[in-house]
Amino acid sequence: MRASYHKELEAISQALIEMANLVGSAMSRATSALLEAELQQAESVISSSTRVEDMQRDLEEKAIAVLACQQPVATDLRIVVTSLRMSTDLERCGVLAQHVANVARRRFPVPAIPQDLRRTILEMGQLAQRLMAKAVEVLISRDVEAALQMERDDDRMDELHRTIFHHLMDERWHHGVETAVDVTLVGRYYERFADHAVSIARRVVYLATGEHADDLPIDPSA
Amino acid sequence: MRASYHKELEAISQALIEMANLVGSAMSRATSALLEAELQQAESVISSSTRVEDMQRDLEEKAIAVLACQQPVATDLRIVVTSLRMSTDLERCGVLAQHVANVARRRFPVPAIPQDLRRTILEMGQLAQRLMAKAVEVLISRDVEAALQMERDDDRMDELHRTIFHHLMDERWHHGVETAVDVTLVGRYYERFADHAVSIARRVVYLATGEHADDLPIDPSA
Repeated sequence: MRASYHKELEAISQALIEMANLVGSAMSRATSALLEAELQQAESVISSSTRVEDMQRDLEEKAIAVLACQQPVATDLRIVVTSLRMSTDLERCGVLAQHVANVARRRFPVPAIPQDLRRTILEMGQLAQRLMAKAVEVLISRDVEAALQMERDDDRMDELHRTIFHHLMDERWHHGVETAVDVTLVGRYYERFADHAVSIARRVVYLATGEHADDLPIDPSA
Repeated sequence: MRASYHKELEAISQALIEMANLVGSAMSRATSALLEAELQQAESVISSSTRVEDMQRDLEEKAIAVLACQQPVATDLRIVVTSLRMSTDLERCGVLAQHVANVARRRFPVPAIPQDLRRTILEMGQLAQRLMAKAVEVLISRDVEAALQMERDDDRMDELHRTIFHHLMDERWHHGVETAVDVTLVGRYYERFADHAVSIARRVVYLATGEHADDLPIDPSA
C-alpha cells in the first residue's frame, strides 16, 4: 500500500509538471503566432487548450482519490492540497495562452503588434516561458532560493508591462484604438501568466518552509 | 466527534458565503467609486482587499484541518475540495474589485468612464454583484436550476462586454487612448468577476449531480 501511495503522489506531481510544460509551450507558440501573424500556429494553440482543461480535471480526480483512499496527513496532505491549487493556476495559464492566440487569429493577416512594441512583447513572451520553465524546476527541486529568484524575473515582467503603458499613453501613439485595445489585453495576459508561475513557486516555498513567500524577510515584491 | 465534524464543514461553508458577500459588496463599491469618481470609496475597496486574502488562507487552513483530522470521504470530501477551489475564485474576485477601484483612484478627479459608456458599466457592475449574490444563494440552496440560470445572466455580461468593444472600435471614438485602455481593462475585470461567480455555481452543480455543467444537456453557454 505504501508503494502505491507514493506512486499516486508521484503521478500528481508528474501531471503538474506535464501541465506546466504544456502551457509554457502553448504561450511560446502563441507569442510567435502573435508576432509573425501565423494563423496555423494560433489555431493549434487554440485547439490544444481543452487538453489543459482535461488534465486539470484529471489531476483533481487523482487528488480526490488519494485523499479518499490514502488519507494523507501533515506534509503529504499539504502537497496534495497545494497541487490542486497549482493545477488551477496552470489551467488558467492555458487559457491565457489561448487568449494571446485569439488576438493573433482575430487580426490575421495584419500583425496585432506594432513594430515599435515587437521587442517588448517578444521579451514578455520569452520571460513568460522562462518563468514557467523555472516553476517546473522549482517543482522538481523544491529549491527555495530559485523560487525567490523568480520574483526578480517577475519584476522584469512588470517593468515590460509598464513599458507598454508608456507607449500607449505617449501622445505620439498613432496605431489607433483597436491596436491599443489588443496591446492592453495582450500585456495583461503575459503579466497574469507570469503571476501564476510565480504563485506556483511561492506555494513550493510555503511547502518547504511553512512560511508564505510574502512573509519572508527577502521579499523582493516589496 | 460527528457533531464537531459537521460544525467544521459548516464553518467552511459559512466562510465561503462570507467571502462571497464581501467581494460582491467590494465590487459594488468599486463600481460606484469608478462612476462617481469617489476617491474615498476607491481607497476603502483597495484597503479592504487584504481581508479577502486573509479569509482565503484561513479557509485553506480550515479545510486542511478537516481533511487531516476528520478524513472525510465521498461527498463530504468533494465538498471540502470544491470549497478550496471556490475560495480561490473568490479571492480573485476581491483582487478584481480592487483593480476597478485602482482605475478610479488613478484617474481621480476625472471620471474614468466616458458619459456614453456609463450605463453599460453601471449595468456590468450591477450584474456582477447580482451574479455573486446568486452564487451565494446557490451555495446555500444547492439549487441546480438557479445555478444554470446564472449562465444566462452571464450571457448578458458577455453582451455588455461586446458593447464596450463596439464603442471602442467605432471610428467616432473620441475619448483618446488612455480612456480606451481603462475601459478595456475595466470591461475585462467585470467579465472575469462574473466568470468566477458562474464557476462557483457550476461547481455546486457538479457536487449536486456529479456532472460538469458544461456537459449538461441544457448548456446555455453553447
